[in-house]
Amino acid sequence: MFMHNKKLMYTVRVGETNPALANLMLEQFGGPQGELAAAMRYFTQHLAEDDPGRKDMLIDIATEELSHLEVIGSIVAMLNKGVKAELSEGALEEAELYVALGQGNDSHTTALLYGGGPALTHSGTVPWTAAYIDSIGDPTCDLRSNIAAESRAKIIYERLINVTDDPGVKEALTFLMTREIAHQKSFEKALYAIEPNFPPGKLPGDPRYASKYYNLSQGDARTNGDAEGPWNTGDQWERVDDPQAQVAVDGGDGRASVKLDAADNKTLRAMARRTKSMTDHDVVTGADLGAGPGAGKTAKNS
Amino acid sequence: MFMHNKKLMYTVRVGETNPALANLMLEQFGGPQGELAAAMRYFTQHLAEDDPGRKDMLIDIATEELSHLEVIGSIVAMLNKGVKAELSEGALEEAELYVALGQGNDSHTTALLYGGGPALTHSGTVPWTAAYIDSIGDPTCDLRSNIAAESRAKIIYERLINVTDDPGVKEALTFLMTREIAHQKSFEKALYAIEPNFPPGKLPGDPRYASKYYNLSQGDARTNGDAEGPWNTGDQWERVDDPQAQVAVDGGDGRASVKLDAADNKTLRAMARRTKSMTDHDVVTGADLGAGPGAGKTAKNS
Amino acid sequence: MFMHNKKLMYTVRVGETNPALANLMLEQFGGPQGELAAAMRYFTQHLAEDDPGRKDMLIDIATEELSHLEVIGSIVAMLNKGVKAELSEGALEEAELYVALGQGNDSHTTALLYGGGPALTHSGTVPWTAAYIDSIGDPTCDLRSNIAAESRAKIIYERLINVTDDPGVKEALTFLMTREIAHQKSFEKALYAIEPNFPPGKLPGDPRYASKYYNLSQGDARTNGDAEGPWNTGDQWERVDDPQAQVAVDGGDGRASVKLDAADNKTLRAMARRTKSMTDHDVVTGADLGAGPGAGKTAKNS
Amino acid sequence: MFMHNKKLMYTVRVGETNPALANLMLEQFGGPQGELAAAMRYFTQHLAEDDPGRKDMLIDIATEELSHLEVIGSIVAMLNKGVKAELSEGALEEAELYVALGQGNDSHTTALLYGGGPALTHSGTVPWTAAYIDSIGDPTCDLRSNIAAESRAKIIYERLINVTDDPGVKEALTFLMTREIAHQKSFEKALYAIEPNFPPGKLPGDPRYASKYYNLSQGDARTNGDAEGPWNTGDQWERVDDPQAQVAVDGGDGRASVKLDAADNKTLRAMARRTKSMTDHDVVTGADLGAGPGAGKTAKNS
Amino acid sequence: MFMHNKKLMYTVRVGETNPALANLMLEQFGGPQGELAAAMRYFTQHLAEDDPGRKDMLIDIATEELSHLEVIGSIVAMLNKGVKAELSEGALEEAELYVALGQGNDSHTTALLYGGGPALTHSGTVPWTAAYIDSIGDPTCDLRSNIAAESRAKIIYERLINVTDDPGVKEALTFLMTREIAHQKSFEKALYAIEPNFPPGKLPGDPRYASKYYNLSQGDARTNGDAEGPWNTGDQWERVDDPQAQVAVDGGDGRASVKLDAADNKTLRAMARRTKSMTDHDVVTGADLGAGPGAGKTAKNS
Amino acid sequence: MFMHNKKLMYTVRVGETNPALANLMLEQFGGPQGELAAAMRYFTQHLAEDDPGRKDMLIDIATEELSHLEVIGSIVAMLNKGVKAELSEGALEEAELYVALGQGNDSHTTALLYGGGPALTHSGTVPWTAAYIDSIGDPTCDLRSNIAAESRAKIIYERLINVTDDPGVKEALTFLMTREIAHQKSFEKALYAIEPNFPPGKLPGDPRYASKYYNLSQGDARTNGDAEGPWNTGDQWERVDDPQAQVAVDGGDGRASVKLDAADNKTLRAMARRTKSMTDHDVVTGADLGAGPGAGKTAKNS
Repeated sequence: MFMHNKKLMYTVRVGETNPALANLMLEQFGGPQGELAAAMRYFTQHLAEDDPGRKDMLIDIATEELSHLEVIGSIVAMLNKGVKAELSEGALEEAELYVALGQGNDSHTTALLYGGGPALTHSGTVPWTAAYIDSIGDPTCDLRSNIAAESRAKIIYERLINVTDDPGVKEALTFLMTREIAHQKSFEKALYAIEPNFPPGKLPGDPRYASKYYNLSQGDARTNGDAEGPWNTGDQWERVDDPQAQVAVDGGDGRASVKLDAADNKTLRAMARRTKSMTDHDVVTGADLGAGPGAGKTAKNS
Repeated sequence: MFMHNKKLMYTVRVGETNPALANLMLEQFGGPQGELAAAMRYFTQHLAEDDPGRKDMLIDIATEELSHLEVIGSIVAMLNKGVKAELSEGALEEAELYVALGQGNDSHTTALLYGGGPALTHSGTVPWTAAYIDSIGDPTCDLRSNIAAESRAKIIYERLINVTDDPGVKEALTFLMTREIAHQKSFEKALYAIEPNFPPGKLPGDPRYASKYYNLSQGDARTNGDAEGPWNTGDQWERVDDPQAQVAVDGGDGRASVKLDAADNKTLRAMARRTKSMTDHDVVTGADLGAGPGAGKTAKNS
Repeated sequence: MFMHNKKLMYTVRVGETNPALANLMLEQFGGPQGELAAAMRYFTQHLAEDDPGRKDMLIDIATEELSHLEVIGSIVAMLNKGVKAELSEGALEEAELYVALGQGNDSHTTALLYGGGPALTHSGTVPWTAAYIDSIGDPTCDLRSNIAAESRAKIIYERLINVTDDPGVKEALTFLMTREIAHQKSFEKALYAIEPNFPPGKLPGDPRYASKYYNLSQGDARTNGDAEGPWNTGDQWERVDDPQAQVAVDGGDGRASVKLDAADNKTLRAMARRTKSMTDHDVVTGADLGAGPGAGKTAKNS
Repeated sequence: MFMHNKKLMYTVRVGETNPALANLMLEQFGGPQGELAAAMRYFTQHLAEDDPGRKDMLIDIATEELSHLEVIGSIVAMLNKGVKAELSEGALEEAELYVALGQGNDSHTTALLYGGGPALTHSGTVPWTAAYIDSIGDPTCDLRSNIAAESRAKIIYERLINVTDDPGVKEALTFLMTREIAHQKSFEKALYAIEPNFPPGKLPGDPRYASKYYNLSQGDARTNGDAEGPWNTGDQWERVDDPQAQVAVDGGDGRASVKLDAADNKTLRAMARRTKSMTDHDVVTGADLGAGPGAGKTAKNS
Repeated sequence: MFMHNKKLMYTVRVGETNPALANLMLEQFGGPQGELAAAMRYFTQHLAEDDPGRKDMLIDIATEELSHLEVIGSIVAMLNKGVKAELSEGALEEAELYVALGQGNDSHTTALLYGGGPALTHSGTVPWTAAYIDSIGDPTCDLRSNIAAESRAKIIYERLINVTDDPGVKEALTFLMTREIAHQKSFEKALYAIEPNFPPGKLPGDPRYASKYYNLSQGDARTNGDAEGPWNTGDQWERVDDPQAQVAVDGGDGRASVKLDAADNKTLRAMARRTKSMTDHDVVTGADLGAGPGAGKTAKNS
Repeated sequence: MFMHNKKLMYTVRVGETNPALANLMLEQFGGPQGELAAAMRYFTQHLAEDDPGRKDMLIDIATEELSHLEVIGSIVAMLNKGVKAELSEGALEEAELYVALGQGNDSHTTALLYGGGPALTHSGTVPWTAAYIDSIGDPTCDLRSNIAAESRAKIIYERLINVTDDPGVKEALTFLMTREIAHQKSFEKALYAIEPNFPPGKLPGDPRYASKYYNLSQGDARTNGDAEGPWNTGDQWERVDDPQAQVAVDGGDGRASVKLDAADNKTLRAMARRTKSMTDHDVVTGADLGAGPGAGKTAKNS
């Protein structure tokens, strides 16, 4: 179970209020790469995990992410402290308050709808959704997902640091960014502690297709030509450039078929008759009617 | 630009119609780990990518994923071919059709709402959303996200293969699963072709916090005790077990603060007065009223 | 900040695995009335709250809800423990696994997509969204919202208890249900500790409209006639039955108008001319064309 | 403003309760083609419409759709009347109630979460969203959207009629279906009462591209060959079959370019250097590590 | 299957970077009327279509829409090329970067979260959802939906053209706009090539209700009075103005009823007793408590 | 059924157009606390309600909320009347129109996508979703939810009033705000007319846990110390401060367990073996590879 200590994991010292900056910070509060997503990602994985080592690591880190959520949320609350009170008490003239609400990106919604409180939305006001969490219950996949998620969170913090010149905010964000690096390292270690971990799962791939690289985008070599790199060249790859060898690679006719019983066949034929296209002559359409006098010409040249 | 060849990338031969199985297959058509997500993930990354090698790889694989989307969608269409015609032509008695719709998981919605056509939903009927795509425009992060995504897709195909005994469906799914392995390999190669790639981005972490492992979940050692592993033990780690050393790790007071100007301070005090809690005596509440005669007792022991 | 104790707040003893029951339990894990919604509701309010008493209460209860989330998630994990392993190891014949997935409501998605892990969705597989959280940053409103939310959560637990005969599950659910009652009491106390708390906010209502009850649904008195009750009858109410007195209650003309400058007026007139309806004669339409030979008649009587 | 008459627009006589059928009916209550979508589509268009004729028609039909919403919602309420009471009163043994909840498609969620009340979800439990409404504020487009929406609603009602053998339900559904036909006719009339209405809007198309048909899907003529029809053949069309004539149709180089200032150019070069791919040699990757001993071989043939 | 040619379908020449304009362009990239919606709409219809002519047309146009998605996405990428690099390299002072992010509508989210890459969101940052796609698997409905969709897309392009003075962007947008006109013509032709196509589907309407126009919005004839037009007047219509003739049009009592068995009847009576309203006297409420001293008066006049 | 009177419930007189203010007003049109949410909340409850008094009240108020939706929507339409025509007719120079679109918060999306018409989104452009409606089909819970919802709507109107100095807008908003107060009073009366109404539902709580207050957030008494208030202190409460008494409060071992059959046990052991973590030695990871030359050091101190 969870306990709470009234101290933050990292002290938050904000230099001055700034609702528009607060709104940008929401990206790591209720955004797709934010701390709630991180905490819930690891917390739910921990519940289903049976391996004692990974289970322990997942709940350690999930708990830390909740503590991060509190730090970033506290930054938002401090940055909004002025607008919250002004709005609550109607402390400004209407026109002043209107101007205040319109100063920065989507902070108007944060103020009007959430009263300046930290809301679980991203910086564009879209509510957080568990669709952001990509756990599927396989340990090597989930660890890869966690590694990727930590790297993304690191970059969003880096961007936020780059747009802030408040030293207290910068310092707290740097702490949070650094911890994402540490978490990525832990998840990397946990992935490679499972051997083998590639390919994931139990079923082997079909060796006929596992090392093919299909060069499906082709064109002008001079300008945007095909490139070579370790992802399509070298001992591990068979590159397929010929378009004919890229189609129906199983050697079949490349069609989709299903065996139908007699009743379904009959019903399908009835449907086909009823919804048949007449393809042998032109037809007058709503667009022809709508194009007005001289429709044929207009419709053609509009 | 895109071109289309009327042949599928892999021939689809379905043994018999089965709307409930079709519904499970939707997981890889319009689900979070499915082919549309994959195609759009790489396609959008390709548009923003400037590195010619990665740009080429991303559009090659995006194009292949679109071709996979066509294969899995064709499987769905074949499995639903019977129910589509029956519903369209009203070919069965009402009671028979009602039973047919109720046979499998969420296939009722696929039939009623989508007429048996492949819909961009997951197997539980939730429409596909771009919230599934986690690209952030940093190459090492996006490649890690792609690696993780391919590994997840591999596992979902493995699960689908495990619930199907139709040889034609199994064979096509195995092809699709195998290609996810190959794509994961390509993205791995592309990630490690960037040096260094860890930590992602440009800003370094704060060395005071980059190697700490905070043991935040503690408890009964006998049953669910703390575990050790390469993710928290070894040369790369300083493990922090003492709860006092986990709080306010910056050495500050662990509080959140902001400097307010005089006007805001005044407004905040007004808000505090207006919304103050009386904490020095009990109050009668709606729950007390609602608990009925003998409220105090009831409310206490309910 | 948060800490975690490896013991649950309430011991979970599940009698046997049951994925379909697990799926129902998800309603209180990732559903709108579930524990994540509760925890995040109070946690975010706590961050923005300045009153020390309410702030303390909100984080106490938020922390407990996180601990409840862990209890209900553990129930889900136990109920799914069999299907998770079977799916992961491909331990059954395909046809057996297919049947297993189809046994209960939406458990097929939980298995296929989440591998049997507790997912932050409701029992119908819709991912949790912060749109469920209705906090607006006003203390008397938020407390009312919390009271209502706790009462709803109590009922969902009551329904879950009514569909379960596993004694261990029933016991844990009863604990969780009881705590919602206790939390509702706390929020009631906190609401009435603010005086006055009605009407919420600072602006008074317009006395002309604050006590009117508009009887807008009228009709057959014998069958579904108008009813009287304390909500529209008594000293506090002026009931308005006359439809003429319900329209344009300000005494104006009941129209919407705006003052436009000359340029906008001119542009509006241009738009009106361009998009004008011809209302003085019938027109031939796409439906007329589409109704086939004898269109007029068909379109009329179809 | 709206008034309400306690009588329904159409009398609802349900033969017996049936929660699973109720759940299917939700498709027209809170589904994408349902009555709330219809009502809100026309109501919002009406608010912005200036043309007096269309404005009047839109609110007439919007009001009728609200009345339809009440009819279909009443059907749902009647079909669920049993399960609502049983769940509310805990009237059955747990095992009986559990079985009752599991009988039909997604009715478990309707029961557990909504207590048997009509919920604004589709038949697969996805909540209604205004994303279903495609109004854009142009009269000829919105009328076309309305025509299409009415035709879709007609078909969903037809499908629901086909799965029901309760005469009272069938009769009410037939009324609702018929009204969609009538509404489609009205919207058709309103569209063609604007002349011209094609192409929509004010800007003409570029005549070089307005009559081209690009044959972008090509292939095996015998099996899935190109087809001809009035949509690509005849006086109004110039069909383009040659792939070379389909690319960069403006005659340019088919590339995307932007003029950058010196500072941006410099920054872009720095980014390119930092994130460059090494393409001249193979690299060892996480997949190579993870493939275990004999990695090269395994990674290639997995 | 799909192939890709490295040239765009239309050359993109952007005059200068402009992240706020890029953000507006997203409307046609990941917005409801944008190119992904178009491509997926036709692609999924094509998969389920059996008529060879329509199937061919649908995949031809789907493929073109994917190529349009690439063009509009390339415009976005070019417009963001500066901000992408600046953010990635931290090339500006914090305050400069903060100002840069705040310059235009929602471009802050595009920059912070997506790193300047084209994201599948609309211009207000809402992620694309398949809820935008209204295909239902009936050919005449789906063609009407396509006609409407093309007309909407035409108008959004017209609006974008009207807010841009960059000649290269304007030219590419004009190409895309023109193609929507051509596609609308194709879908019109395909609709009218099915005879009859109205009313859609197989079931006929009930002739008693198919030609009625219910005048449900009534009122002041002078100001906003009822209008006549071909949608409610003429040979094809019977207009119903009398409110009494608009209610319970089947001639029944306008009530909803269901036949219940004895057990359900008993349970319903128990529920009614337990949740009965006392309607014969006033009650003290939470609002009365909360209105403070002088509650009755305050509650009444607040 | 519903009827419509062409007069508004309250006359709307807007002083001048202002698209950015229109956008803020959307909060009460298509926002979570807005009028559509209110109308649908009460309308759906009314359909399922059997108590004649509450049923009547719910439809009276639902009908009024629809009339409010029309008032607030009319305000939006008036404020946008200029931009709608300018955009439709292309009446301004491109640069002027571009500037016009960028003037206020999210009004660019309202203009571009919705053509200036009132859209069912909140002020940040997120489409309305039925996830905002929290009705669960229990009368005392639903009434509490309604009370809370009315109080929230009152505050959002108060905030909107505070940012507007247009007298006509202010007056209409004040009417709407006042009616929310009246509705809250009605719902309060209806709640307390059910006796008892606390705790909600039928199942009693477990007396061992119903009056406990778990003090789960602890810490520095001087700064953010625990507070006392009627929510945790007094006759109705037993406060639990000792962390040991907060864990596994049932007296069990605080673990989650499930009884598994032999087959599942065997499969679980196989899964455990296959996915085991090696915890006894460090491993080389992708991060180690990616940290470049001197990886160990870099990875540790990054």
